[in-house]
Amino acid sequence: MCYLKKPTINGARLQRKIEELGQFGKNEKGGLDRTTFTSAELAAREWLQTQCVSLGLDVKCDPAANIWAFRNGRQPLPAISFGSHMDTVPNGGMYDGALGVLIALEVMERLNEERIETRHPFALVSFTAEEPNPFGLSTFGSRAVAGKLTKQDLEGVTDDNGLLLTEALRQAGGDPDRFEDTHPLAPPLSAYLEVHIEQGKRLVTSSIPVGIVSGITGIYRERVTVTGDANHAGTTVMVERKDALAAAAEVVVAVEQAAAEMQAEEVVATVGTLDVRPNAANIIPGQVEMVVEIRGKTSAEIDAVHHALNSQIAELARRRGVSIKQETFLSQRPVPMDKLLIDTLAEQADSLGYKTLTLGSMAGHDAAHMAAVTRSGMLFVPSIGGKSHCPEEASALCDIEAAANVLFHALLKLDQNLDQKGTDTR
Amino acid sequence: MCYLKKPTINGARLQRKIEELGQFGKNEKGGLDRTTFTSAELAAREWLQTQCVSLGLDVKCDPAANIWAFRNGRQPLPAISFGSHMDTVPNGGMYDGALGVLIALEVMERLNEERIETRHPFALVSFTAEEPNPFGLSTFGSRAVAGKLTKQDLEGVTDDNGLLLTEALRQAGGDPDRFEDTHPLAPPLSAYLEVHIEQGKRLVTSSIPVGIVSGITGIYRERVTVTGDANHAGTTVMVERKDALAAAAEVVVAVEQAAAEMQAEEVVATVGTLDVRPNAANIIPGQVEMVVEIRGKTSAEIDAVHHALNSQIAELARRRGVSIKQETFLSQRPVPMDKLLIDTLAEQADSLGYKTLTLGSMAGHDAAHMAAVTRSGMLFVPSIGGKSHCPEEASALCDIEAAANVLFHALLKLDQNLDQKGTDTR
Repeated sequence: MCYLKKPTINGARLQRKIEELGQFGKNEKGGLDRTTFTSAELAAREWLQTQCVSLGLDVKCDPAANIWAFRNGRQPLPAISFGSHMDTVPNGGMYDGALGVLIALEVMERLNEERIETRHPFALVSFTAEEPNPFGLSTFGSRAVAGKLTKQDLEGVTDDNGLLLTEALRQAGGDPDRFEDTHPLAPPLSAYLEVHIEQGKRLVTSSIPVGIVSGITGIYRERVTVTGDANHAGTTVMVERKDALAAAAEVVVAVEQAAAEMQAEEVVATVGTLDVRPNAANIIPGQVEMVVEIRGKTSAEIDAVHHALNSQIAELARRRGVSIKQETFLSQRPVPMDKLLIDTLAEQADSLGYKTLTLGSMAGHDAAHMAAVTRSGMLFVPSIGGKSHCPEEASALCDIEAAANVLFHALLKLDQNLDQKGTDTR
Repeated sequence: MCYLKKPTINGARLQRKIEELGQFGKNEKGGLDRTTFTSAELAAREWLQTQCVSLGLDVKCDPAANIWAFRNGRQPLPAISFGSHMDTVPNGGMYDGALGVLIALEVMERLNEERIETRHPFALVSFTAEEPNPFGLSTFGSRAVAGKLTKQDLEGVTDDNGLLLTEALRQAGGDPDRFEDTHPLAPPLSAYLEVHIEQGKRLVTSSIPVGIVSGITGIYRERVTVTGDANHAGTTVMVERKDALAAAAEVVVAVEQAAAEMQAEEVVATVGTLDVRPNAANIIPGQVEMVVEIRGKTSAEIDAVHHALNSQIAELARRRGVSIKQETFLSQRPVPMDKLLIDTLAEQADSLGYKTLTLGSMAGHDAAHMAAVTRSGMLFVPSIGGKSHCPEEASALCDIEAAANVLFHALLKLDQNLDQKGTDTR
C-alpha cells in the first residue's frame, strides 16, 4: 500500500459533479425527469462514459446496458466494484442513485491523483433502470447481473407508448439478443459497495453522518381484489349492499393496524394503489383492486403481519358477504449485507472519526441483488428532512464527504484484505 | 267522456315496441349503449318522431332537444303531459326511461283507436339526457324546461373527445342559441306523469305490481379531499406516516355507518368514486379524492347523516394529522309528488283491481324537476331482481300492462277533473 497519511476525497469537485449530472432531465419544478431510457437518461449515460474515459478507465456496456468502468489492478483478481444507478423516478431528485455513481467517480479520480496502485482491479458500475419505470421492471440491471432476469422476461414488454423494452435497451447500448450472457459473462467480482441516500429520517433524527446498512428489507406484495355487487346507490338499501369499497376500506385499515401492532421500526405495511370500479358517484362500487405491500427486516416479521392481516380479511369477507382474492406477485426475502464489508466500513468510519449508525435499509437497492453474486455492502447518507423521490431531495455536503471518505478507505482496506489465501472465506 | 267499459292498453304491441326501440344501441353483451347524443340515441329520436307522426301527433323539438308530441284537446287548456327519456347509461338496459316513453306512445295509440276526445291537449314527452352522460349534465332536458339550466351552464362544455355540448345539442335538433327560451316558451302544462322502472327490490319483494311514488329522494353530494404526506412506503416508519388512503378508508367506513345507523329504508349514503395519488405500490398515498353521496326522503334525514359524518371526519383528521376538505357540489332537496296525482293513480289502480305500494323514489328522475313547473307524479314498475343500468334490466309484461293501464285511466280521470273552475287549486 502506498498511502500513509489518509487522503480524502475532493468535496467541492464532487458537489460540482452532482450539479452537473443534475442538469440532465431537470424540469421546470426543479425536479428531475430522468426515467430509464428517456433521452435525458441516455444523455446522462453519455456524460458518465465521457467522464470515465477522461479518467483513463476502461468503459464497457454489458448486454443489460449496465455501465462498467475498470481501473487496472496489479494482480489478476476479481474486481472490487462500487457504484449505484443514474435513473430517477418522475419528478425525482439529484441524489437518489446519482450520488453513489458520482462518489465512485470521485474515488477513481482520487486514486489517480494519489497514484495509488491497487491489488484488485476496481470497477465503477452504474446499473440500468433501478427505479420503477414504464417497462415495469425495477432493479433491472442488477437483476440481470445476478441472473434473475431471463430473455422471456423482456419479450413483448413495452412502455405505455408501445416502445419495446428490447428496442429501448439497444438504444441505451445493451444487447437484448445476448441478454442472458449478462450473468455468466459478468466481470468476476470480489465485492460490491454502494453509497446511497437513506430516504428516511433515522440518521438526521439521531444526527449521525454515516449509516452502515445491516441488511436490505424483504418486500412482499400482493394484489387484493374485493368483489361485491355494483348497484344503484339510491335504490339499494343499506342492509342489502355488498359494497366492494367499504370492504376494501376495512382492508386498508387492517393493513395499517397489522404493521403498527408489531411496534418494530423496520416493519411497515402499505396500500399504495387502489382502483375502484365502476367509480361513478351514483353506483355502489362492485370491485376494488389494490396492492398491499409488507416490508420487514426478517421473513418472520413479514409473515406475522401477513398472518394478522389474513385473519382480518377472512372475518370481514364473511361478515360482508364479499369475495376477497389475494395474489402474491412479489416476494423478495430480506438480504443481509456482508459481515466483512460491514466491519470494514465501521472500522474505517471509526478511524476517520465519524459516528455511525447500523440500520436496515427499508428500500430495495441494487446491492440486494448483487449479494447473490458477491459480497455486498452499503453506506447511507442522511437525507435532509427524510425526503426522497421529489425535487427537495438533498443531502448536506459534509455528510456526503463523510460517506465518500469511508468508502474510499474501506475500498483500500478491502483491497489489502480480500482474496488473501487462507484469510478470505465467504 | 266517451268510454263506458274500461279499455286497456295493448300489451303485445307494447312489448314489440320495447323490442324495436331496444335494437338502437344494442351491443354484443346484450346491453344498450345509447348514451345521449350518440348516433344510436339520435337514431332512437328519429324512430320515436316517425312513430308519433304516424299516430297523427304534432311533433316539436324544443331548444333543449326534448321531443314533444301533442294530441289535440277539445278545449284550449294547458296540456297533460306524460313520458320519460330514451338515453341509457353505457351498457344499460331496454327499460330504464324507454318504458315510460313507449307506454306514452301506446296510450296515444289507444286514445286514437278508441276515438277518445279529451278536454286537454295530451303531450307525450321524451326528455334529453336524463342519465349521467359524457357532458356531465344529467336530467338535462327537464332541468331546461324547469328553467334550472342557463346558457352559461352549456358554454365550453365538451365530452372527452372535445365535442362541444352546444354542437351535439344542435345535431339532436336542439337550439343552443335559444336555449334559455326552453323554460319561458315551454308548452303550458296541467300535469306531468311518468312511468319508470323501480330500479330497486321493494315491489318485487312484496309482490305488488304497481308502485305509486310519494316523492323523489333528495340527493346531496360532496367532494372530499384528504391530504396527507406522500412518502416512501419502505423508509417511512408507521408512526411518522400521514397516509391519505388510510384516513380516506376511515371516511368510507364512517359514511356507511352514518347511514346505516339511521335504520330507515329511504336513507342511503355511498362513496362511489375514490381516486388515489400518486397510486404507486411503493409510495404512501399523499392525496385521496372521493365523492360522498347521501340520499333521503327528507332534508332532515340527509342533514342528520351529514352531521354524524362530519363529527367522524373532524375526529379522524385531528387524530391522523391529515387535512380533510369537504366541498358540496350537489344539493337537490327531496321533492314530494303531487297529492291529487297520487290519489288519482291510487284510485284508478284500485278500480282496475291492482294492488299498490306507495314508496319514495331513491333515484332522481325528470319528474322531480317537472314538479317545479306543474303537478308531477310517478308510477313504478317492478324491476326483476331489482336490477337496472345493466343488460339484465327487465320488467314482466303483466306488471308493465298494469302500470300502463293505471296511467291510461288516471290520465282520463285527470282530464275530467283538472282545470275545472272552483275545484282545482294547487
